[in-house]
Amino acid sequence: MSLTIKVHVDTHINDLNIIQYQTNRHNRRKFTNYDLKIRPRPIYSSSPLTVYRPKMNVDSVRSSVIKSSLIEPDGGVVVDLVVPESERELKTVEAESMPRVNLTNIDLEWVHVISEGWASPLKGFMRENEYLQSLHFNCLKTKDGSLVNMSLPIVLAIHDETKERIGSSTNVGLVGPDGELIGILRSIEIYNHNKEERIARTWGTTAPGLPYVDEVITLAGNWLIGGDLEVLKPIKYNDGLDHYRLSPQQLRKEFDRRQADAVFAFQLRNPVHNGHALLMNDTRRRLLEMGFKNPILLLHPLGGFTKADDVPLDVRMEQHSKVLEDGVLDPETTIVSIFPSPMHYAGPTEVQWHAKARVNAGANFYIVGRDPAGMGHPTEKRDLYDPDHGKKVLSMAPGLEKLNILPFRVAAYDTVEKKMAFFDPSRAKEFLFISGTKMRTYAKTGENPPDGFMCPGGWKVLVNYYKSLQSEEATGQAAVLAS
Amino acid sequence: MSLTIKVHVDTHINDLNIIQYQTNRHNRRKFTNYDLKIRPRPIYSSSPLTVYRPKMNVDSVRSSVIKSSLIEPDGGVVVDLVVPESERELKTVEAESMPRVNLTNIDLEWVHVISEGWASPLKGFMRENEYLQSLHFNCLKTKDGSLVNMSLPIVLAIHDETKERIGSSTNVGLVGPDGELIGILRSIEIYNHNKEERIARTWGTTAPGLPYVDEVITLAGNWLIGGDLEVLKPIKYNDGLDHYRLSPQQLRKEFDRRQADAVFAFQLRNPVHNGHALLMNDTRRRLLEMGFKNPILLLHPLGGFTKADDVPLDVRMEQHSKVLEDGVLDPETTIVSIFPSPMHYAGPTEVQWHAKARVNAGANFYIVGRDPAGMGHPTEKRDLYDPDHGKKVLSMAPGLEKLNILPFRVAAYDTVEKKMAFFDPSRAKEFLFISGTKMRTYAKTGENPPDGFMCPGGWKVLVNYYKSLQSEEATGQAAVLAS
Repeated sequence: MSLTIKVHVDTHINDLNIIQYQTNRHNRRKFTNYDLKIRPRPIYSSSPLTVYRPKMNVDSVRSSVIKSSLIEPDGGVVVDLVVPESERELKTVEAESMPRVNLTNIDLEWVHVISEGWASPLKGFMRENEYLQSLHFNCLKTKDGSLVNMSLPIVLAIHDETKERIGSSTNVGLVGPDGELIGILRSIEIYNHNKEERIARTWGTTAPGLPYVDEVITLAGNWLIGGDLEVLKPIKYNDGLDHYRLSPQQLRKEFDRRQADAVFAFQLRNPVHNGHALLMNDTRRRLLEMGFKNPILLLHPLGGFTKADDVPLDVRMEQHSKVLEDGVLDPETTIVSIFPSPMHYAGPTEVQWHAKARVNAGANFYIVGRDPAGMGHPTEKRDLYDPDHGKKVLSMAPGLEKLNILPFRVAAYDTVEKKMAFFDPSRAKEFLFISGTKMRTYAKTGENPPDGFMCPGGWKVLVNYYKSLQSEEATGQAAVLAS
Repeated sequence: MSLTIKVHVDTHINDLNIIQYQTNRHNRRKFTNYDLKIRPRPIYSSSPLTVYRPKMNVDSVRSSVIKSSLIEPDGGVVVDLVVPESERELKTVEAESMPRVNLTNIDLEWVHVISEGWASPLKGFMRENEYLQSLHFNCLKTKDGSLVNMSLPIVLAIHDETKERIGSSTNVGLVGPDGELIGILRSIEIYNHNKEERIARTWGTTAPGLPYVDEVITLAGNWLIGGDLEVLKPIKYNDGLDHYRLSPQQLRKEFDRRQADAVFAFQLRNPVHNGHALLMNDTRRRLLEMGFKNPILLLHPLGGFTKADDVPLDVRMEQHSKVLEDGVLDPETTIVSIFPSPMHYAGPTEVQWHAKARVNAGANFYIVGRDPAGMGHPTEKRDLYDPDHGKKVLSMAPGLEKLNILPFRVAAYDTVEKKMAFFDPSRAKEFLFISGTKMRTYAKTGENPPDGFMCPGGWKVLVNYYKSLQSEEATGQAAVLAS
């Protein structure tokens, strides 16, 4: 036994792949409900660690000393583009002399995302070379020839006037929405922003009504500017939630501090009900059964741009903290943090980004649900994406082989047991599915959902939010009537 | 020197990569005109051949005995799905008992393509697993974890009635447009044909007027059926051109017979003018300069579905043979053959397919032009694709690392030298660009293009074709007037 223990652990985890689908002869592959199966991963990654992996079994892991930097970030290091404090003044003076590019709020969210390394190994807004790879292959080739996943184009658009102002300059200063100098983009490249092609290839539709398209891309300029990013100081929002915004490096440190030997990430942009909680607790139980000593849950709500009818971030964060206060999730084994990315609602394309960013933050297990990052078709009465494509595409995605995909087990309200439980098709009639729309209707009308649907503290947060919306609406209507 | 000579040659060729772009600080990367540069490829392919490649130089190749199976087909073997003659009768009887799926002419072209291994390692119409990988990643993961390029979904659509007729059967018989039993699709899988998503992700637009969409996809059924293909006998068209339709295996044999040590493929769907010929002859000259002893040109016109205003295949083949008869291209070092694929006009997505199929046929160099597989935007006054994206995307495409990309050098009519010559920007005014539209106008009006634009024999073929069109039109108009 000449290998170090760290290698044992990494190796073991890279070797696992939890898959849950069975092939149905004719129709789509059906994912069975969370019947965990472990199979060895094919050797694919070009990193020496995985190529030379020894055969390991669960027992040998049980007896290992655990280190929680469980999974390599894409490209080997978590990118950090915040300039050291010692250089800040000098760089600020330098940036002041450069042509300026004004950022929107959403551009700033992307600056935040890139600067902290969620998109590692990406070191700035994409140049055309990266943009085309992302658009056509959902991945980038690294210098050593291996692929990292990169499904969303992370780009900065500028208008004609800005392009003219830049002229032949090599570097530009980035200015936040409030006029503050935020950072520098170096060795820039300006190229065409073919919006139609970007939209078609990212969303698989060009139908009007896609939130990110309508609110971001349509208003954006016809040029994209790529380059190497430097951020003058960490991005803060001063909204009382910055303490929740842990960077990938901070999260990795926290996993280490807690001596996690598995980290399972749960991406969400909705309130947590007891069905979610059941799933997360059950995942932890199963990971323990598999021999992990201390699986840690990363409860990781998305904090960037969301569509108008989603519950706002501050309300969600309050709701999530009630869920922990009420003991539905165990604070000892849960980290609640905000994922700063804007939301695209781009289904199978976007779920890869959601997973890849969590790999960079140290998660080696990723829970994926029905229709992840999906929404209704904007002009037709159907889901925009096949609800099963998200988990299928994720499980096939180049560059994500090292991540263990945990498909979502469907939970519903068990009207006999009077609690959220995993759906049992043999007694389907006894289950009640409470959709997001249904939940919102309950909250708006002040009607209580069935006992056990959500912890009372969390529910109260939602009721108060929808009450406040109604009184705002009433005020608005009154104002209209009075005008 | 313990390696065999064959390994030397393969290795050497895999090591070469001919690139031609320089980075321009701000704007798009500009491809310079054919300044061949050789750089070592990054080690990426997982095949032991490339991983353990020794460093080689051109001199060591010069002295090698050459074998022309120059490049490995994707997946290691050229797929051949034509059943052996000894089994044909038995399989035909078996197929007769299966539910039937009727093929359109274009479906049959795809059966042809798949059965001969152009799409190796694909062994039939795509199941959902392959379809999703093609759509999202433009490549397929093979069993050993390596990627092969696969940018176009190669799928078979069926209507509701056919799906019902198939019921729970595992295998179906494929019936050609003339009612003849063509083959078998085994272990079938039927899944949704989301046309909008397929179109958006393949073409990067959903604008009406895409030829393959209007004439194929829109009319097709809402289900896709995937499975393993068996073809009862080789596909023939009986149009007097079948002798031009060499399979990838036949082409590889022919390259061997001719002792080719480099094969450079030229995909086209237009008549060959002297500018093309100049490029092809110049490519051969440069390959000779690089140390190759016998570079062979694969002049490889596309023979499947094309849009209505393209010159028909039989006319093009006649024109091409005149070009060889007139000595513009050397028959000794040129193989003219038909590529049986239908045309998508899907630009950067399709050019990968065009290149990948030629790899399977043994080509290790691929000439790529401006806006390959592109067309005008169907509803806007612009090219549908950025004319440079094709060669850029091709040079980045996962699974095509082993292919050497030769960007097209622009030729135009030199009004001083009175011949087609490589465009010289320093005396731009002395060059005349003769577009396809301009060429067709010449041919239609009977006006001669400038001397030296095309060999007289080839030009005559075109003039006759357009004359015949006009007399057809005249007859049609007369018929309309008379009715």
